[in-house]
Amino acid sequence: MVDIGAFPPEWREGVYEAIACRRDVRSFRPDPIPPAVLARILWAAHHAGSVGFSQPWNFIVVDDLEIRRKIHDHVDTERLRAADGFEGNRKARYLSLKLEGILDAPINICVTCDRKRFGPAIIGRNTMYNADIYSTCAAIQNLWLAARAEGIGVGWVSILKPEVIAQILAIPDHVMVIGYMCVGYPVEFTDRPMLEAVGWLPRLALSELVFSNRWNETPNVQLASALRDLDEVAKGDHSKGSPRW
Amino acid sequence: MVDIGAFPPEWREGVYEAIACRRDVRSFRPDPIPPAVLARILWAAHHAGSVGFSQPWNFIVVDDLEIRRKIHDHVDTERLRAADGFEGNRKARYLSLKLEGILDAPINICVTCDRKRFGPAIIGRNTMYNADIYSTCAAIQNLWLAARAEGIGVGWVSILKPEVIAQILAIPDHVMVIGYMCVGYPVEFTDRPMLEAVGWLPRLALSELVFSNRWNETPNVQLASALRDLDEVAKGDHSKGSPRW
Repeated sequence: MVDIGAFPPEWREGVYEAIACRRDVRSFRPDPIPPAVLARILWAAHHAGSVGFSQPWNFIVVDDLEIRRKIHDHVDTERLRAADGFEGNRKARYLSLKLEGILDAPINICVTCDRKRFGPAIIGRNTMYNADIYSTCAAIQNLWLAARAEGIGVGWVSILKPEVIAQILAIPDHVMVIGYMCVGYPVEFTDRPMLEAVGWLPRLALSELVFSNRWNETPNVQLASALRDLDEVAKGDHSKGSPRW
Repeated sequence: MVDIGAFPPEWREGVYEAIACRRDVRSFRPDPIPPAVLARILWAAHHAGSVGFSQPWNFIVVDDLEIRRKIHDHVDTERLRAADGFEGNRKARYLSLKLEGILDAPINICVTCDRKRFGPAIIGRNTMYNADIYSTCAAIQNLWLAARAEGIGVGWVSILKPEVIAQILAIPDHVMVIGYMCVGYPVEFTDRPMLEAVGWLPRLALSELVFSNRWNETPNVQLASALRDLDEVAKGDHSKGSPRW
């Protein structure tokens, strides 16, 4: 199907809806994910672009409860430690947030980056040594969007020390832990991202994030207007759906 | 539309087809991108998840030809320099590859990461300081997939020094250049990634990239079988389309 250019409307809608309705999920139902569905979302991850076609990723599917308890203990320690970074009321609010579903979800997936795969000469890595890490993040986003299409929620846990996870999962030194994801059918896909919904931080206006030719230079009138139109839709009633594609 | 779980079949197909048919595009037609379409793919980027909802990204849309010539000159210097990393026949093959479309494409988009946005206390960044960079890469992948759905090609140029690009585009010190993308209607969307098609590196088998619970441990029989099934499809005739979703 690669001779096609622009997608038919329903396919295009699917792409935008996955992007619009993807959430960082922290509350899961215990239902298992069918192996064929799990294989598909891993396939999606594996089909991200990668610097010099180096495909540096691996995926460790963690269901063992003892391992997950160890990781959960570590995350909880780091969660409490991080609380000291917030002051007063904000600290109490931070501590009230549910930030991960390591034990609720049926599985976790640890996504890693092998710094030596096909190396050392990889097209594009001599100037951007970390491009392999960037590729791994693209794979994670593919996994996240495919999961959303399957009705599966994903939550990225970053309140953890990658080296602690690497030790628990027996990951070798030249392989870096990039994403630790909780994966399963969610209790719900919420209307907005949780940290936006509770007022932790505001959604930025897209029209203020786009520049033309140099940092801080305003885009041309047509693009600026099109960006503001999308910002207006975003401010509207989310229950009525996403912007028109 | 956020009360939905699994997507209807056409939407789901759209997500997987975008992932399967996304290419790193290096040859473009000069046709301009309509502002409303460009705004939509930037909207897609802005709706990636971000660590602690920090939305660290900006997008500099570069159409100025003089600026692009400067960047192209730099990339060409680095392309030639990198040739020394390859030996004999491989060096000649590397030099024959078209690796970027900076001047062919109607626009370039520089995607940056503001290391100080909403900082310093961002949920999840005290343990993973680079999670803001990871978020920015997720935004790039969203842009790439939305572009594919619109029939627009994107190529990520990593044969460049981010600090040189930052200087040319007047980007401040606390903001990091992550992705420099060529964006426009492609000459074609090829069947397979170019570096795979020319035999530069092989596509790895997904079934060999997935582990269970610990590094190098084989997944259970059901998952292993489902992964091998997808590998078999991938080896088949690509012109007949993607795996059945």
